[in-house]
Amino acid sequence: MSNDNNRTLTVTWDDPMVYVQHAATMSGLEIMQAMIAGQFPPPPIARLMNFTLGEVEKGRAVFTAEPAEYHYNPIGVVHGGLISTLLDSALGCAVHTTLPAGVLYTTLELHVNFVRPLTQHTGPVRCEAQVLHSGRRMATAEAKVTDAGGKLYGHGTTTCMIFPADGG
Amino acid sequence: MSNDNNRTLTVTWDDPMVYVQHAATMSGLEIMQAMIAGQFPPPPIARLMNFTLGEVEKGRAVFTAEPAEYHYNPIGVVHGGLISTLLDSALGCAVHTTLPAGVLYTTLELHVNFVRPLTQHTGPVRCEAQVLHSGRRMATAEAKVTDAGGKLYGHGTTTCMIFPADGG
Amino acid sequence: MSNDNNRTLTVTWDDPMVYVQHAATMSGLEIMQAMIAGQFPPPPIARLMNFTLGEVEKGRAVFTAEPAEYHYNPIGVVHGGLISTLLDSALGCAVHTTLPAGVLYTTLELHVNFVRPLTQHTGPVRCEAQVLHSGRRMATAEAKVTDAGGKLYGHGTTTCMIFPADGG
Amino acid sequence: MSNDNNRTLTVTWDDPMVYVQHAATMSGLEIMQAMIAGQFPPPPIARLMNFTLGEVEKGRAVFTAEPAEYHYNPIGVVHGGLISTLLDSALGCAVHTTLPAGVLYTTLELHVNFVRPLTQHTGPVRCEAQVLHSGRRMATAEAKVTDAGGKLYGHGTTTCMIFPADGG
Repeated sequence: MSNDNNRTLTVTWDDPMVYVQHAATMSGLEIMQAMIAGQFPPPPIARLMNFTLGEVEKGRAVFTAEPAEYHYNPIGVVHGGLISTLLDSALGCAVHTTLPAGVLYTTLELHVNFVRPLTQHTGPVRCEAQVLHSGRRMATAEAKVTDAGGKLYGHGTTTCMIFPADGG
Repeated sequence: MSNDNNRTLTVTWDDPMVYVQHAATMSGLEIMQAMIAGQFPPPPIARLMNFTLGEVEKGRAVFTAEPAEYHYNPIGVVHGGLISTLLDSALGCAVHTTLPAGVLYTTLELHVNFVRPLTQHTGPVRCEAQVLHSGRRMATAEAKVTDAGGKLYGHGTTTCMIFPADGG
Repeated sequence: MSNDNNRTLTVTWDDPMVYVQHAATMSGLEIMQAMIAGQFPPPPIARLMNFTLGEVEKGRAVFTAEPAEYHYNPIGVVHGGLISTLLDSALGCAVHTTLPAGVLYTTLELHVNFVRPLTQHTGPVRCEAQVLHSGRRMATAEAKVTDAGGKLYGHGTTTCMIFPADGG
Repeated sequence: MSNDNNRTLTVTWDDPMVYVQHAATMSGLEIMQAMIAGQFPPPPIARLMNFTLGEVEKGRAVFTAEPAEYHYNPIGVVHGGLISTLLDSALGCAVHTTLPAGVLYTTLELHVNFVRPLTQHTGPVRCEAQVLHSGRRMATAEAKVTDAGGKLYGHGTTTCMIFPADGG
């Protein structure tokens, strides 16, 4: 990603199907560790919105982002879509870290609480998600978005459905 | 926005503070009508994610978008962040259409249900929001994301807090 | 249910397992029609909280209740638990009306918006739910709580998981 | 509350307006401490549903309940209304503990995740809520419902609006 002048951004991305091709033989945790190690490119949405998967372990995932003017809404702060996208990413990935190879998930619902506005002066933020319930057919997780000083900007929860890759 | 080659996108945006400067003298509906008429530029997030405010009336707002590969997540479909961002935009704008000049809102929470995945083959989608409750201090709204054939992809609700621009 | 004096209530209920025994041979709609016709007793929670299943058709269910002092919380109005219970009942039943014999559901999540307080002077309220998405593995629905004049007190949505009675 | 025979329950309650009369001179924490100490009677809903405020400190509240047959829904387990009511109580009280005398709150929304069914054999459950964000105009909180062994049955979040008792 390059910022050619004040208000222009050029985004480049890679084929998003590379992960899907490995879903039958790699666990969720292995896929995400490969992503952090740079063996897989970031997914397109992460290039577009400019966020990064930072840490991952079983039941936990952390993303980072830096709120910028190109994330702004018409009311003079970062659009709620950025917090929502970070929460959805971290929550889904936290659930995915608990799944073996050949098992997939889909997000059924996302709930977001916005507690403070993000601005381009907030600096880097961190979105950390933790699995709360991990069952055979569904899982739930919670996540928080905080700045470098630990101040809370938003939090959320999700429900994911879990199913075998062969369609169940 | 231009798509220079297969997987590169250049995004250009405008100063997002233009709307805020008019909030004291224009109602929410007037600001959004001016946006549709091209008198105000789209906010940066709308350029970045590539969505458009299409219709607006008191208590109702409609956005459109065309899901593309640059919206993809690692599991081979459009990231939930696109539906979340569209819902948050339409829900907030529907509430904003009910507010007179000098009255502001902030989104407290967003709830999103994902019922079908969007892909780059879905074609244009429409996100329509409707205010459900409009009070002195808070408002709620509901919205749906559908394709050209009316098929439902996601739906959501929001709670917004309402307050005078002078801080209340 | 009888109200012996000003602030005493005696609640009587029936074995709640009667419905489950018919789940393999009756559809959700047939079970609920039998409940309305008085062939099955109301479930215990409906006796305790004093609400009634009033109407049912494929994809839709309506409950009624009369808010009373015994529903009150410490802040001088009806506890949010009454609206939540009505919404959960109507939303789950609306989904259940779409399921054939031998197919069960479980509620994964419930989202409730409280827009006005109920009091013992509100009079009878109606909670009407409508299915929004009905899939093979999951369904979503929305519902509203209104008084006799159509005034809105709360609204909500749900996500239910659907699975065969034999455990899938 | 007495259970006269197998399936009959007699519920007695007190005037719920006693707390409201003290809201101008006692903080939320003081009111709830008085409730635990038995200086105020439990609110009617707590008698009806049979749950108890157990612990309270600034930013935290714990309720306990014992799921019983009179809480059952037609699908053979405890109705989601019990978990919803416990969560709503604990979340609201956790927020209330942070408010000084003369400041009130109202619950705008409640989100509930059901992760396991409660039955009459679950034994006593505990619902513990914690404030996440405490602002001038609004607060958020999260809560969990667990059994004696710490197993999770449900979790939830809330958004409350905060305002001066004189109407703001």
